[in-house]
Amino acid sequence: MIRINEHYTKLKASYLFADIARRVAAYQQAHPDKAVIRLGIGDVTEPLPPACIEALHAGTDELAHRETFHGYGPEQGYAFLREAIAAHDYAARGCDISADEVFVSDGSKCDCGNIQEIFSTDARLAIPDPVYPVYVDTNVMAGRTGSAADGRYEGITYLDCTPANGYVPALPAPGVVDLIYLCFPNNPTGAVAPREQLAAWVAYARENRAIILYDSAYESFIRDEKIPRSIYEIPGARDVAIEFRSFSKTAGFTGTRCAYTVIPKNLTALDASGKEHSLHALWNRRHTTKFNGVSYPVQRAAAAIYTDAGRRQTRALTDYYLGNAALIRAAMQKLGLPCVGGDNSPYIWVNTGRDSWEAFDRLLNDAQVVVTPGAGFGRCGENHIRISAFNSRENVETALERVAKAL
Amino acid sequence: MIRINEHYTKLKASYLFADIARRVAAYQQAHPDKAVIRLGIGDVTEPLPPACIEALHAGTDELAHRETFHGYGPEQGYAFLREAIAAHDYAARGCDISADEVFVSDGSKCDCGNIQEIFSTDARLAIPDPVYPVYVDTNVMAGRTGSAADGRYEGITYLDCTPANGYVPALPAPGVVDLIYLCFPNNPTGAVAPREQLAAWVAYARENRAIILYDSAYESFIRDEKIPRSIYEIPGARDVAIEFRSFSKTAGFTGTRCAYTVIPKNLTALDASGKEHSLHALWNRRHTTKFNGVSYPVQRAAAAIYTDAGRRQTRALTDYYLGNAALIRAAMQKLGLPCVGGDNSPYIWVNTGRDSWEAFDRLLNDAQVVVTPGAGFGRCGENHIRISAFNSRENVETALERVAKAL
Repeated sequence: MIRINEHYTKLKASYLFADIARRVAAYQQAHPDKAVIRLGIGDVTEPLPPACIEALHAGTDELAHRETFHGYGPEQGYAFLREAIAAHDYAARGCDISADEVFVSDGSKCDCGNIQEIFSTDARLAIPDPVYPVYVDTNVMAGRTGSAADGRYEGITYLDCTPANGYVPALPAPGVVDLIYLCFPNNPTGAVAPREQLAAWVAYARENRAIILYDSAYESFIRDEKIPRSIYEIPGARDVAIEFRSFSKTAGFTGTRCAYTVIPKNLTALDASGKEHSLHALWNRRHTTKFNGVSYPVQRAAAAIYTDAGRRQTRALTDYYLGNAALIRAAMQKLGLPCVGGDNSPYIWVNTGRDSWEAFDRLLNDAQVVVTPGAGFGRCGENHIRISAFNSRENVETALERVAKAL
Repeated sequence: MIRINEHYTKLKASYLFADIARRVAAYQQAHPDKAVIRLGIGDVTEPLPPACIEALHAGTDELAHRETFHGYGPEQGYAFLREAIAAHDYAARGCDISADEVFVSDGSKCDCGNIQEIFSTDARLAIPDPVYPVYVDTNVMAGRTGSAADGRYEGITYLDCTPANGYVPALPAPGVVDLIYLCFPNNPTGAVAPREQLAAWVAYARENRAIILYDSAYESFIRDEKIPRSIYEIPGARDVAIEFRSFSKTAGFTGTRCAYTVIPKNLTALDASGKEHSLHALWNRRHTTKFNGVSYPVQRAAAAIYTDAGRRQTRALTDYYLGNAALIRAAMQKLGLPCVGGDNSPYIWVNTGRDSWEAFDRLLNDAQVVVTPGAGFGRCGENHIRISAFNSRENVETALERVAKAL
C-alpha cells in the first residue's frame, strides 16, 4: 500500500508567489480596464544583454551541425564557464576558489532547495525571519522540522530581523545550530552584511562546527566597495561555507536559467562515528546522479557575461534597476515610511506599520501596484512590504505616483 | 555539529558512466594515435532537427527585446508546450491526459530521481535488474534501502531480467511492493512490453495499491504499432501510474535539456490514517518549491518537435539510429552472440557469455570501441554488454568491422 511523504502535509497551503498571482489574477478579471504594475515577485523585465543573445545564437548554431554538436555535457558544467566564474567572481576579488569547486546548475532555487539532502535529517537549522520561503519549505519536506504553529515550524531557530535590531539578526547561542542559512544582499529586506558581521558568522560556524549556506544571488547589486560580495572574502570561510550564485538578477536570466554553487574541496561534515566526509564529494554524487547539466547554448550565454562587453552590459543592467530602487526608496521616505535596502540591493523593505496583506490589497486596489506582503516571508515580515525595483523606469515612476496618491 | 546524510555512504564508489569515462580517458592517454568510437553511453551524435534550431533562434530573439522578453515562466512549463504534448503524445493515441497533468522539466534523470521524494521513506521498492542506476541510487540516498551486499541493496525487490525469462521480469508476489519502476523500451536491454504484459502490471498495481513509475524515454523508437507507447494506453493506468518522457533521444536534446512527467489528477496515495492525497498536488508543490521552469528558448524548441516539419525531422532522426541498431543487431547475430533489443529501441543487449568488464576492456583495447558493461546495470547484467546505436552510420560501420576482427 503506497503511502505519501507526510512531511508535505505540514506545509502551508501554497507557495507565496502562487498566492499573490491568484489575487492579482482575480483583480484583473474584475477590472479588465486597469493596468496593473508588478513590483512584487523579483522578476526582471529588461532584455538579455546583447553579448548573451549573441552567444545563445552561436551556441544554437553549433547544435545544428554534427561537427560542432553537443550532447550530454559534464553535469558540473563546461570548463569554459567554471573557469570564467572562478577567475572573475573569485580570483579577481582575492578569493581562493578553483574552477572545479564550482557546480553549474539551472537555478539557485534548485540548489538552495536541494543542498539540504546531503546533511543528516537531524541537523539543527538556523533560518532568518523574514526569509525566502524555499529554505524553510524544503527542510519541512525533508522532515527536519515539526509542525507549524503560529506561522513557525517547531525545530527551527529563527533569526529575527526586526526594526529593533536594524534587521541585523543576532548570533544564536553557542552549540545550538548546525546549518545556517544566510542571504546578503538580503531577500526580502535588501540589507547588506558588512565585513565584520560576516566575519562573526564565520567565527561562529568555525567554533560550533556548523555550516553556512550563503545565498549571494544579489551580489551584483553591491556598489559599496567595502561590502563583501562573497563569503569567501572572509578568512576561514572555506572551512565552513557553501555559496550560491545566480545569473537571474545579474544578467536577466530568470527565463534563461543558469546559476552555480561553490563547495570548497576542504569543506567537511561528520558521520555518527566522527569521521570527516567531503561535502564536495557528496554534492558531486548528488549532482551527477540527479542532474544532467545545463543547456549548452545557455552555458555559452552565461560565459558571455564575463567578456568585456558582457561585463559592461550587465553592469548597465544592474545600474538601471538600482536607479529604480533609488526612486522607490526616496518615494517611501517622502511618504514618511521607514525602509531599508535599495542602495546595494534591488529590494526595498518598507515598514508600513499595518497588516501586510491589508497593505498588499490596498496597493493593488487603489494604486494597481503589486508588492509582496512581508508576512509571506515570515512572522517578522508582518507590518512590512517588499517592493522590487525590477521593472522599466517608466512603470516604476507611474507606480510611485499612484502609490503616493493612494496612501 | 554538522553531520552528513549517511545513506550516501552506502552507495557504490561512483556513477557507472563516470567509471567508463575514466577507463576510456586512460586508454586514450596511453594510445593517442587510436581513434575510439563510442557506443557506450546513450548520447546522441546527430544535429538538432532544423525545426528546433529555428525555434531556438526565434526564442532567443524574443529575449532580446523588452516587448517580447520572458522572465520566470510557469514552473510546470508553458501552456503552448504542455498542450502540444497532451494533444500529440496522448490524445492522438487515445490516452486521456490533459495539458495540466503534464509537468515540463529539464530532464528525465531529474524527474526519475526526484519523484521518490513525495513517497514515504518506508515505501517498498520493486526495481528491475539490469536497470538504469538512477532509480536505485536515488532511493539509497533517501534511506529507502539497507546496505549493499554482493551488488544488491537490502530492502529492494529486484525484478530479474535474464536469458532464462527472455528478459521479461515476473510479477512480484501480491502485497510485497508499493513502488514499481518500469522502463519500456528498456534501458539497458532494449526489450519492449507488449500490451498484455503492461496490462498485467497495471492490474497488479491496482490490486495491491501500488504505484508504477513508468519510464518511457525511448518510446519514439517503437515501430511496431501493436506495442503501447504510453502506459496510459492500458485501461485503468490513470489510477496507478506516473509516466516519464524525454526529448533527449526523440529529438537529440541531450545537451539542450527538456523532458516531462505526467501525473494524472486522480492518482492518490495514502497517509498513515488511510486518507487519500493527490500525487499531482504533492508533485506540484515539490516542482514549484524546488524548480523554476525550463529555459524559454528550449521550451520553444521542444514545441517545434510537434509541428509538421518537426515530426518529419524527428522521425527521420530516430529512423537513422534504428538503421544503426539493425546493423549492430545483425553483426552480433552473425558473430553468434544472442541479443535482444535494437528493433524498437536504440539499445542492443548482447549476451557475451563472459565477464562484462572483461568484454568492455577487450573491445576497448582490441577494437577501440566503447560499450557499456552489463554488470554496471546490476547483477543480472553480468555476462552482457549494452551497445548503443547513437552514432553516425560511418562510425557504426567502422566499429562493427573492428569488433568482428577482434572477437
